[in-house]
Amino acid sequence: MALALSLGRRGQGLCWPNPAVGCVLVQGDRIVGRGWTQPGGRPHAETMALAQAGAQASGATAYVTLEPCAHQGQTPPCAQALIDAGIARVVAAIEDSDPRVSGQGFERLRRAEVEVKAGVLADQAARDHAGFFLKTEQGRPLVTLKLAASFDGRIATSSGHSQWITGPEARRAVHAMRARHDAVMVGAGTARADDPSLTVRDLGVAQQPVRVVISRHLDLPLLSQLARSAKDVPLWLCHGAGADVERLKAWEGLGARLLPCAVRGMQLDAGDILQQLGKAGLTRVFCEGGGALAASLLALDLVDELIGFTAGLGIGAEGLPMIGALGLTRLEQAPRFQLIETRQVGPDVEHRWTRSLQ
Amino acid sequence: MALALSLGRRGQGLCWPNPAVGCVLVQGDRIVGRGWTQPGGRPHAETMALAQAGAQASGATAYVTLEPCAHQGQTPPCAQALIDAGIARVVAAIEDSDPRVSGQGFERLRRAEVEVKAGVLADQAARDHAGFFLKTEQGRPLVTLKLAASFDGRIATSSGHSQWITGPEARRAVHAMRARHDAVMVGAGTARADDPSLTVRDLGVAQQPVRVVISRHLDLPLLSQLARSAKDVPLWLCHGAGADVERLKAWEGLGARLLPCAVRGMQLDAGDILQQLGKAGLTRVFCEGGGALAASLLALDLVDELIGFTAGLGIGAEGLPMIGALGLTRLEQAPRFQLIETRQVGPDVEHRWTRSLQ
Repeated sequence: MALALSLGRRGQGLCWPNPAVGCVLVQGDRIVGRGWTQPGGRPHAETMALAQAGAQASGATAYVTLEPCAHQGQTPPCAQALIDAGIARVVAAIEDSDPRVSGQGFERLRRAEVEVKAGVLADQAARDHAGFFLKTEQGRPLVTLKLAASFDGRIATSSGHSQWITGPEARRAVHAMRARHDAVMVGAGTARADDPSLTVRDLGVAQQPVRVVISRHLDLPLLSQLARSAKDVPLWLCHGAGADVERLKAWEGLGARLLPCAVRGMQLDAGDILQQLGKAGLTRVFCEGGGALAASLLALDLVDELIGFTAGLGIGAEGLPMIGALGLTRLEQAPRFQLIETRQVGPDVEHRWTRSLQ
Repeated sequence: MALALSLGRRGQGLCWPNPAVGCVLVQGDRIVGRGWTQPGGRPHAETMALAQAGAQASGATAYVTLEPCAHQGQTPPCAQALIDAGIARVVAAIEDSDPRVSGQGFERLRRAEVEVKAGVLADQAARDHAGFFLKTEQGRPLVTLKLAASFDGRIATSSGHSQWITGPEARRAVHAMRARHDAVMVGAGTARADDPSLTVRDLGVAQQPVRVVISRHLDLPLLSQLARSAKDVPLWLCHGAGADVERLKAWEGLGARLLPCAVRGMQLDAGDILQQLGKAGLTRVFCEGGGALAASLLALDLVDELIGFTAGLGIGAEGLPMIGALGLTRLEQAPRFQLIETRQVGPDVEHRWTRSLQ
C-alpha cells in the first residue's frame, strides 16, 4: 500500500478534478501491475494497472489508495473493471467521500464476491486525497500556504526589494511543491511587485499548474510575465464585480480566464475565491502570498498546510510583513498549526505545519 | 580533547572573567585526572586535574582546551604547575589571545622540556572560548541573541499579549541557555511589558547569571520582579547620563549596580553598552530582546550567535516585531547569519545561526 500511495502521488497536480489514485496488483509475491491516475484524469490507476497485468490479474490482489469508483463517468467504473479482470481481493486505503461512490464501490465488489479490506494506511491516504475530499465535502480545494521570509518574518525591504531572500535550494524546492499542486496562487501586490511567471522550471514537468492571481480591481500590468505567457500556461484571474470592463476584455484577449468573486469588506472574499476555484475543478492550491492574501486565508481558517522558509538575515520592522493584519489582540485568537517537520535546505530552514486539530 | 572541551563547557557562565577551560590527564591509556575552571574562576582546570591525579601526573599527557597560563595572577601559573607535576606532554586546543599568556605558556613548557602540541580541535575551542577571546581582543563579551516569535516573526500581539507564544519545552531550553552565559540582557520595553525575573529556574544551578537591563532613562517600575530580587541575584542597569538622580539612588538602594553608557541618537549606544559590560568582566551575554535592543545590536554587527524559536501561530502585521527598525532598503545591507542547526523542540522549531564569515 505504501508503494500504491507513492505511485498515487505522482498524479498530484496533473489529474484534477479527479483524485490522484495509485494501484498495485499482486499475484502471489509478485507485482504484476502498477498504475496511477494519468494526466488529465484518465486512464484511472486501476485501468492502467490492469492493462499492465493482462491475464495475470486473474486471482490477484489489488491495492488501491481510494475506494474504486462505482459510477459511469467519463470512464467505465473501476469496480466493474476489477471484477471483470478476475481480481480476488481488493485492499483499499480509504473510502471515497464522493456521494456517487461512497461505499458503493466496495458494495459492488462484495456483491461480485471479491474480498474487500479497507482502512490500510488510511491516515496517509487521507492526507494525499485531502484536496479531493475537501472539494467533494466543502466545495473548496486544499490550500497550502508557502511563505519565504527573513529571520524576522519579512518578505521584502521597505522599498520592495525581495530577490533573493532565500537561496537557490529553497527556490528549487518551491518549484517541486508547485508541481504537486493543481494551481499556484498569489495576490495582486505580489504579482505587481515581483512580476513572477509562477511556472515550474527546471523539473521537466509535462503540464504546468494553473496560475491564479487575486485582484479585486484587476489592476495588473498588461506587460508582464503573466500576461505574456497567458496563451501558453493557464492564467485565471479572480476579480470583483467593480473591475473595469476594458481591463476584463484585455485580459480575456490575452487568454486569461476570468472568475468573478464576492467582495468582503475591502477585499475579495477568500471563502468565495476558493469556492469558485473548487467549482472550476481545482483540488490543490499552492498559495505563495503576499501578506494580505495570506492574512485573508488565515483569518477565515482556510489554510490546510503552512510551509515556511526562514533565511538567516534580518530585514527589520520597516520590511514588508509576511502576514498582513489579522485584527487579533489575544494569543488564543491566533490561527494555530502543528509542526510536521523542520529541515535545512541549503542555507535556509524549511518548516512544514498542518492545521491544528484542536 | 573532545572530553576536555565538554568538561570546559561546564564552567561557562560560572567562571567569568576567566575562560572556561577543560583539562584531562592521561597516563598510558588511563584517565588519571579531569578538571574544569571552577565557579568564580578558581581553581583552574589544570590545578583541579593535577590534584585529582596526584603522583600519577608524573609522565602523563595533559589535554587542555586553552594554552596554560604563564603569568602570576590570583593563582600561580598553570604552565609551572604542569611542569612541577612532571607532565611529559601537553596537547592544547588553541593558543590564548590574552597578551599576558599568548605563546608564553607554551614557551615556558618547552623550555622545561615538556613536549607541546597545539591546534587539536581548534575550531571547537575557538567557539567555546569566543566570549573570552572577544573580551580580550575587542573589549566586549560574546552576544547570543535569542528571539522567540510566532510563525510571522511577532513577539506579542498589538495589545502586548505574549505569554506564551512558544511551548514549555522551548522555555526550558532557554533556561539552559541562560545558565551557560554570564549574563541575561533585555531592553527596558521587555522589562516593563513582561515583568520578568530573568533567572534560571528548575535546573538546580549553583550561581545565577547577572541580569542586565538596558534603560536610557531608567524608567523601570520599582515594584517588579527585578527590583524585588535585586539583593539576591545581581542586577545591572545600563542607563544614560540624563537618567533621574532619584531613580538612580532608588535602584542602588535596592541593590542594583549602575553602569552609565554613552548615548547614540535616541538610544543608548549598543557598542558602548557592551564595552561597559566587558570592562565589568562579562564574557558571554544572552540577549532576549526586545525588538529595539535586537535592532541596535544587529545594526552595529554585534550579534555573534542568533537563536530563533518559531511557533506555529500567526499573529499578523499589527503584532510587535521581533526586530525593530534597521533602516535598510536593499537586501545586501541586511545582517546575515549562517545556519548551524534546526530542530523540533516540543511544538516549536529551534534554529541556531552564527555570524556569517563573509
